[in-house]
Order: sequence, then C-alpha cells, then structure tokens
Amino acid sequence: MFPNVLEVARKLIKERVQVGETVIDATMGNGNDTLFLAQLVQERGKVIAYDIQKLAMEKTRERLEREGVAGWVDMRLASHEEIEAVDEPVGAIMFNLGYLPGGDKAITTQAASTIRAIESGLRVLRPGGIMTVMIYWGHEAGRVEKDAVESYCQTLSQMDYLVLKYQYINQQNHAPFLLAIERRGI
Amino acid sequence: MFPNVLEVARKLIKERVQVGETVIDATMGNGNDTLFLAQLVQERGKVIAYDIQKLAMEKTRERLEREGVAGWVDMRLASHEEIEAVDEPVGAIMFNLGYLPGGDKAITTQAASTIRAIESGLRVLRPGGIMTVMIYWGHEAGRVEKDAVESYCQTLSQMDYLVLKYQYINQQNHAPFLLAIERRGI
Repeated sequence: MFPNVLEVARKLIKERVQVGETVIDATMGNGNDTLFLAQLVQERGKVIAYDIQKLAMEKTRERLEREGVAGWVDMRLASHEEIEAVDEPVGAIMFNLGYLPGGDKAITTQAASTIRAIESGLRVLRPGGIMTVMIYWGHEAGRVEKDAVESYCQTLSQMDYLVLKYQYINQQNHAPFLLAIERRGI
Repeated sequence: MFPNVLEVARKLIKERVQVGETVIDATMGNGNDTLFLAQLVQERGKVIAYDIQKLAMEKTRERLEREGVAGWVDMRLASHEEIEAVDEPVGAIMFNLGYLPGGDKAITTQAASTIRAIESGLRVLRPGGIMTVMIYWGHEAGRVEKDAVESYCQTLSQMDYLVLKYQYINQQNHAPFLLAIERRGI
C-alpha cells in the first residue's frame, strides 16, 4: 500500500540526514517528530525544537527522557520564528501545522508567522537538505494557512529548491498533505 | 535529489508488478513505457498496448524488436477505450496523456475518452495493482483533460482505491505531474 504522508516525510528525511547532523523540529507538539529526529542524528548530533506551548514542551521532554535521547535535544519554549537565530547549517527541518493534538484547538500555527519561519528555515538549510511541512487544514485558520504556504512555496526559485506536493486526493475532506522542499546542491 | 515524476511512476509499478503478469500501456506513444513494461513482466508475461496513431505503433514496434521484447507485446492500433474488452486481471496500467512527442500536436488524448479508458482500466486492475496517469497539460485540450481526470479521481471510493497526486509545484507553468491509483486489497 501507499505509505501515509507522515511515513513519506520521514523516509525523505532519512534518505538525506546523516548521524551527527543538526536538525530542527519547528513544532514539537507531542514530540513524535522530535523523537524521530533525535534517534536519527544520535548522540553526536543535535535537534533544536520549538513550541510556544508549555504543555507541548512538557510532553516532549517526558517522551525524550523516557527514550533516553533528551541529552542532545535543545528544547525552546519559543515561536518557530526564532529559527531565524540559528547560525549553523541544518540537514532537515520538520513542520507540523495546525493545533496541538489533545491541547487547546484555538491555539494554532498562523499563516504569517509560519511563512516567516519557513523563510528562516530555508536560509539555514544546507544544500541537499530537506524541509517537510505537514499541512493540517481541517480548522478555519488552517485553510488560510494552507493557501498561503502553498502560494509561497510555488514562488521558490527552481534553481535553488524543488518543492514536492504529495497528496492523496480521494480522501475525506481536509486530509493532511505534505509539502517537501529540497534545497538543491551537493 | 527528488526523482522526476516518470521515475516515480516506474518505481511504484516495479514495487507492485510480478514477472509473468499481464499489464497495459494505454498510450504507446514512442514506446518508452511499453518497453519498460515488457522488460518488467518478461517473456512469461504480456503487455497489451494501445495507440490510435500508426506512427506511434511503428516507432514502438521498431523499438521493441530492437530490444528483443516484441514477442510478448500485443500492440493494438485502437483507442485505449478498448481496454474495456480486456477480460483478465492486470497488475498495472500506464497512461501518458497529451500528444505524441515528435508527432502531430493536434492529435491529443481527450477528456471524455480518457475518463472512459480510466474507468475500464480500473475494472480490470487486480487488487494491489496500480494505474499511473502522467498528465501533460501545456496544450489547450490538456487543461480541460487535467481538470476532468482530477475531478473524476477525487470521486473514487477510498474503500476501493487510494489516489496519489505527486507534483512539483515550483516548476515552470504546466510541468507534468503524476496521478497514481492503487487498488486496495491483497
């Protein structure tokens, strides 16, 4: 069977990221991707992870500690717009748009700040590196954000990036889909 | 680097088709996919291949003979709507919409007959089998056909099929993209 969109995102990242690299989880949420990234880069690497919600950070910390990988994850209670301050090349950046599962559904990522974060992320992405953006758009702000992010990505120079949209189109309304941005170069 | 859409289609087919199976090339064109399919199912298998243009059939025959695989390709100078008459389960069906490269650009696949052919193809596709539809939509009829095929695919029951749209969205206008339809089941 075709893999689900999350599996596709992880496979694309696994094929490109090396042990020992620095990577970014732009939206910790429940820590699923943070854990995945920490296990991927291992102790010699580093994960920088963002979330504006204390609940997300606590859930993630607990999870990482249980799995024994918290030592190389730099958790930041801050907006992913702070990616701007990262000053080293990174191999991968993961975004999960929308709200925290099990949290306050009124607190969602927003189009304008998401696009600033994506822009900042692309600036620190190394050649050959990849950014994955999982788009959940069943909520009202999600539809606006989806259109804005997709439009932004369409404008990215094809000399520098290749933007893949991977979507199952016969699903119930608003099934999440994946945008994956690869930075060209070695 | 991300693979091009044709490579993606072939990879999806390779992962699902067995040596010895029957498969269909709905649009021979220059015979690229016919050759790929013939090499995949090998002598024990069979490729049924359609095109309404004699030029396409001649180019394809020449190619298959040169590669020594013509023996198990059943070439039919007929519309892919004739897929309807196939009476055995097939593992894969490939469509390349648009016109014959190097041929008469006024002769293109058309929305209504393409959709009838897709419908017929889905009826003979075995569970676990796959249909790939490469959509070229740079020409006028292509835009109409693209919209019609996409709309049709969106209506396919998610109990029976999974429809993947795989598209690079920051390319020059009208870059071809892929629809891949997997029939559920073992």
